[in-house]
Amino acid sequence: MKLATYKDGSRDGQLVVVSKDLSTAHYANGVATRLQQVLDDWNFMSPQLDDIYVNLNHGKARHAFNFDPKLCMAPLPRAYQWADGSAFINHVELVRKALGAEVPASFYTDPLMYQGGSDDFLGPCDNARFASEAWGIDFEAELAVITGDIAMGTAAQQALEGVRLLMLANDWSLRNLIPGELAKGFGFFQSKPATAFSPVAVTPDELGTAWAGGRLHLKLQSMWNGQRVGLCDAGEEMTFHFGQLIAHIAKTRHVRAGSIVGSGTVSNKDWSRGYSCIAEKRAIETIESGEARTEFMKFGDTIRIEMKGADGMSIFGAIDQDVVPLHPAEQAS
Amino acid sequence: MKLATYKDGSRDGQLVVVSKDLSTAHYANGVATRLQQVLDDWNFMSPQLDDIYVNLNHGKARHAFNFDPKLCMAPLPRAYQWADGSAFINHVELVRKALGAEVPASFYTDPLMYQGGSDDFLGPCDNARFASEAWGIDFEAELAVITGDIAMGTAAQQALEGVRLLMLANDWSLRNLIPGELAKGFGFFQSKPATAFSPVAVTPDELGTAWAGGRLHLKLQSMWNGQRVGLCDAGEEMTFHFGQLIAHIAKTRHVRAGSIVGSGTVSNKDWSRGYSCIAEKRAIETIESGEARTEFMKFGDTIRIEMKGADGMSIFGAIDQDVVPLHPAEQAS
Repeated sequence: MKLATYKDGSRDGQLVVVSKDLSTAHYANGVATRLQQVLDDWNFMSPQLDDIYVNLNHGKARHAFNFDPKLCMAPLPRAYQWADGSAFINHVELVRKALGAEVPASFYTDPLMYQGGSDDFLGPCDNARFASEAWGIDFEAELAVITGDIAMGTAAQQALEGVRLLMLANDWSLRNLIPGELAKGFGFFQSKPATAFSPVAVTPDELGTAWAGGRLHLKLQSMWNGQRVGLCDAGEEMTFHFGQLIAHIAKTRHVRAGSIVGSGTVSNKDWSRGYSCIAEKRAIETIESGEARTEFMKFGDTIRIEMKGADGMSIFGAIDQDVVPLHPAEQAS
Repeated sequence: MKLATYKDGSRDGQLVVVSKDLSTAHYANGVATRLQQVLDDWNFMSPQLDDIYVNLNHGKARHAFNFDPKLCMAPLPRAYQWADGSAFINHVELVRKALGAEVPASFYTDPLMYQGGSDDFLGPCDNARFASEAWGIDFEAELAVITGDIAMGTAAQQALEGVRLLMLANDWSLRNLIPGELAKGFGFFQSKPATAFSPVAVTPDELGTAWAGGRLHLKLQSMWNGQRVGLCDAGEEMTFHFGQLIAHIAKTRHVRAGSIVGSGTVSNKDWSRGYSCIAEKRAIETIESGEARTEFMKFGDTIRIEMKGADGMSIFGAIDQDVVPLHPAEQAS
């Protein structure tokens, strides 16, 4: 099943069911108007949405319309939790190596995670607005899951059963704000502005055998200003699977339905596969030549993030955003 | 106006209007069932709730009932944002001094804040459950505000106008998990379990002249196992006022209605006023004698946090919690 949220002027938008090929959609308002309602009562509502989905895929849904990702909000336009991991340890290794720092041994057994803001997500085609290019604007192409309720103390394997939906994320990062912020000791804050998500969120059964062991074994593509800069495998090198990330959150508290959990930048040891964030490209340049040459994003830049199945079809639709100044007057300066 | 959320078995509970003296309450369901709905549409709904409040205070509300804080969830049982500051720099100074560390100069101009989990708050009288006493269980008595919408880039004075409601918070902390977690560089996560909030949230006009310049000039009382351990002024020594804390969040993103912003542990330079968290008591002991003697909380301990107005009446009702083991069997071990 594939679900999306259409813009309707409200804070939470309108839930729609989207066909497998992303060509058509149907309002879910006979069942629920908002995705959070479905997550709150998954076992009751999701079979009803699945009925719509089956009809839609067979061309039998009565009020189907053409699906347009530009009209989408994030599947959850706001959420009660956004916890993002850094589960591809290769990314951590590269960034640390460029800084001349070691990776502590514990990083291979204890996931790095941060708590992100979740009150104001961006839709897949929304402009990403920043007040200053000097902040070091960077994309981060990631996978994310939306969970059901998971009780405090749940172990990784059982936590994995709480995965309800998967989607793509663009975890916008302001690289030049990070060093000062991390030096304060309390973690990311201003350096992590609003995150964007893919047009649709999909249930795990849509992914077939590619979804295995809490990892999604498919390639995540990043196109920066129309050039493919990354085609990274999102599965095999994910050091901590999603069940482990969820269990990390649940160690000292309950995790409630609608929590979004991210993988962190998808990163591979084989540099020829490219990169899922510019910081990593710069780290590689620093390791190779002692100097980062690739600059961060400028106003007017574009980023497109997408994942295709074995059949070559887009699974989640594309995140496709423009970087624009917060105040248009600043573009001239 | 005073608002609370009654337990009804649902995730978001039932919104009730509470009388000024906290003696009676009235369901708000002619207006809204959930507090988030009111925050989403404040200018339309809050005057209607205020009508109920006026009738309730005059003993004219038709279906009033006795108000019982034990039946309360947190005013917002789950929220789209919980961002907690450490705005009383005296607390930071003490903790750092005990560790033999300096306070960086920037800490006096740039607030320390962390992003907290907001998917599962505790009600004011809910048990606080932890899997282990060895984690270093500590309360943190704080003030918090709930905001309306505040646009990216809003300055502190204007951000302050976005404060809709105030309440008390108990920002439970697991002190022995903090050093390892902060050493990882991504900030608090497992060391900050579910936060509890006071029975009622109140509009700023309820506070009269005590609410001035974004600070609440009243004393916050902490009773640990029935002993008063803190009676700290929550106003004058708050280094950053709430408008500054909100503006800090809004520097790189929009802040959306229903965001909760905390002051951090209320802390005074005059040690005779006591403490609002055990970590601070232990810091003082370390500074005075080289050794922390006061132990963290044990299963069976209680904590009561309350604030009274100039008239001696409780403003927010009391947070009144028991510390209990996650699994009752562990209590014996």
